[in-house]
Amino acid sequence: MSQPAHPLPQAPAWIAVDWGTTHLRATAMGGAGPLAQAGSADGMGSLKPDQFEAALLALIGPWLTAPVTPVIACGMVGSRQGWAEAKYRAVPCTPVAADALTRVATKDSRITVHIAPGLRQDSPADVMRGEETQIAGALALHPEFDGVFCLPGTHSKWVHVSAGEVVSFQTFMTGELFALLSTQSVLRHSIAAEGFDDAAFDTAVSDALSRPERIAARLFTLRAQSLLTDAAPIVARSRLSGLLIGIELAAAKPYWLGQPVTLIGAETLCDHYARALRAQGLAPSTLTAADCTLAGLSKLKGAL
Amino acid sequence: MSQPAHPLPQAPAWIAVDWGTTHLRATAMGGAGPLAQAGSADGMGSLKPDQFEAALLALIGPWLTAPVTPVIACGMVGSRQGWAEAKYRAVPCTPVAADALTRVATKDSRITVHIAPGLRQDSPADVMRGEETQIAGALALHPEFDGVFCLPGTHSKWVHVSAGEVVSFQTFMTGELFALLSTQSVLRHSIAAEGFDDAAFDTAVSDALSRPERIAARLFTLRAQSLLTDAAPIVARSRLSGLLIGIELAAAKPYWLGQPVTLIGAETLCDHYARALRAQGLAPSTLTAADCTLAGLSKLKGAL
Repeated sequence: MSQPAHPLPQAPAWIAVDWGTTHLRATAMGGAGPLAQAGSADGMGSLKPDQFEAALLALIGPWLTAPVTPVIACGMVGSRQGWAEAKYRAVPCTPVAADALTRVATKDSRITVHIAPGLRQDSPADVMRGEETQIAGALALHPEFDGVFCLPGTHSKWVHVSAGEVVSFQTFMTGELFALLSTQSVLRHSIAAEGFDDAAFDTAVSDALSRPERIAARLFTLRAQSLLTDAAPIVARSRLSGLLIGIELAAAKPYWLGQPVTLIGAETLCDHYARALRAQGLAPSTLTAADCTLAGLSKLKGAL
Repeated sequence: MSQPAHPLPQAPAWIAVDWGTTHLRATAMGGAGPLAQAGSADGMGSLKPDQFEAALLALIGPWLTAPVTPVIACGMVGSRQGWAEAKYRAVPCTPVAADALTRVATKDSRITVHIAPGLRQDSPADVMRGEETQIAGALALHPEFDGVFCLPGTHSKWVHVSAGEVVSFQTFMTGELFALLSTQSVLRHSIAAEGFDDAAFDTAVSDALSRPERIAARLFTLRAQSLLTDAAPIVARSRLSGLLIGIELAAAKPYWLGQPVTLIGAETLCDHYARALRAQGLAPSTLTAADCTLAGLSKLKGAL
């Protein structure tokens, strides 16, 4: 969703930028917090390296009334295919570190740009970009937290945090699998574009957790049920979601079993994960991704 | 691949047609066997109901020198979105039955067209269209067979056959998952378009069979390994194939454990499945899908 920036009565002290594969979101920050927000569809995936500066200026131009405005960005903008590569830091480590920011040269002297690096884990091999800033923000909001963060999304992350450091993490392609299966596979004929059926979701999570090895068989059953019994498309959608979240929970069990879990993400998706985790006896709390990203970038700004 | 028909020195006795979602393949049959083959890309998925007759005539026209030529077809042409719906027969039952063919009205009096119905199973819900004819053909070629057929493909089928009847079956979306993940997901950046690494495949099958519940975690690892260790794209391709076939085998274990297994399908794909099954102590035999389809349609023709 595009949301243009408008001139502000005061120049922002700095600008926080969340720049992912498909989105660019900016927040004008004053001394006491956010002044305004803006966004565009100029994600990393649609830009060549020499197009990032123009895309950023096209969005935040109206805010640039100070001689120089610092910009701090996180996300896929720092990948090898992004504006400039911000090399991964290896876990165990703190989620972010001001001295590891990558300074990007700009043609326009009204901005200075820093990009936060992602995290890497060598065994099992894994990477994150953007989530590390959300985790830093969550820890800034709850400094005593010791436990597990779950960040549901296209590539869901489970992250074990202890003493302020990321100890280990694991990525699951749950959101991408859901999108591909529900819109690109034969299941698309049987699955509603939206809607949610609690009971179908709960049963599917339970089925997947108790017999995860049957996942490959259960997917086509959704198609067959709609052909043979006119199963409701909303039920099929909820069941697909439950099956995929269920096998994620089955594989992520070493992360969540007996641990305090905090979800960070979009509200509806976090609601589904919380529902599934409550059925396993957990009492997860939830933070929004936007709040955590802003708190994480603010922590970096404070340390610059 | 399009392969046009050419006029034949003798009129065919009948024409066998394998009509799937993406292909149309016809075989001109003489009294002693195949006379010629032809094919086009006019699959069911690209045709409206009133376009099927023209697509068929465009392909087989040069063969139609007799006053009337019977055509027998199987596959998705008989689905609800096809030329005419050939309603599923419910298992347990023989794979095909001449008296269950759906006769289609044609405008052109040079052909009569019959479509073979698929099979349905009510619990767990499952369907097949086209494979039932391959199974009938495999049984025509090996009348004493009693055991399990595995038909690898976009939607792989495991089929328990006893005393000439299909007792039960189960469909797996393995081929479609492989296509989506290797060409549409984030893994596409890390996966070769072709090539096969035996050792990577074997290890992945074994990993998936021994810990199938970890599948959701193992997929993203392929991406992370290529980012962090420059893992070879052919290794990643083979490992993805092995993981998906491995979880299929994990879920299909009740079918193959201790059973004689015959694979029916494309040669390379059957080789991969045979390799994975041999590692589990089985000695599967293999039949080609084209041979089985033709034998199955011939059995129907003989019973008309």
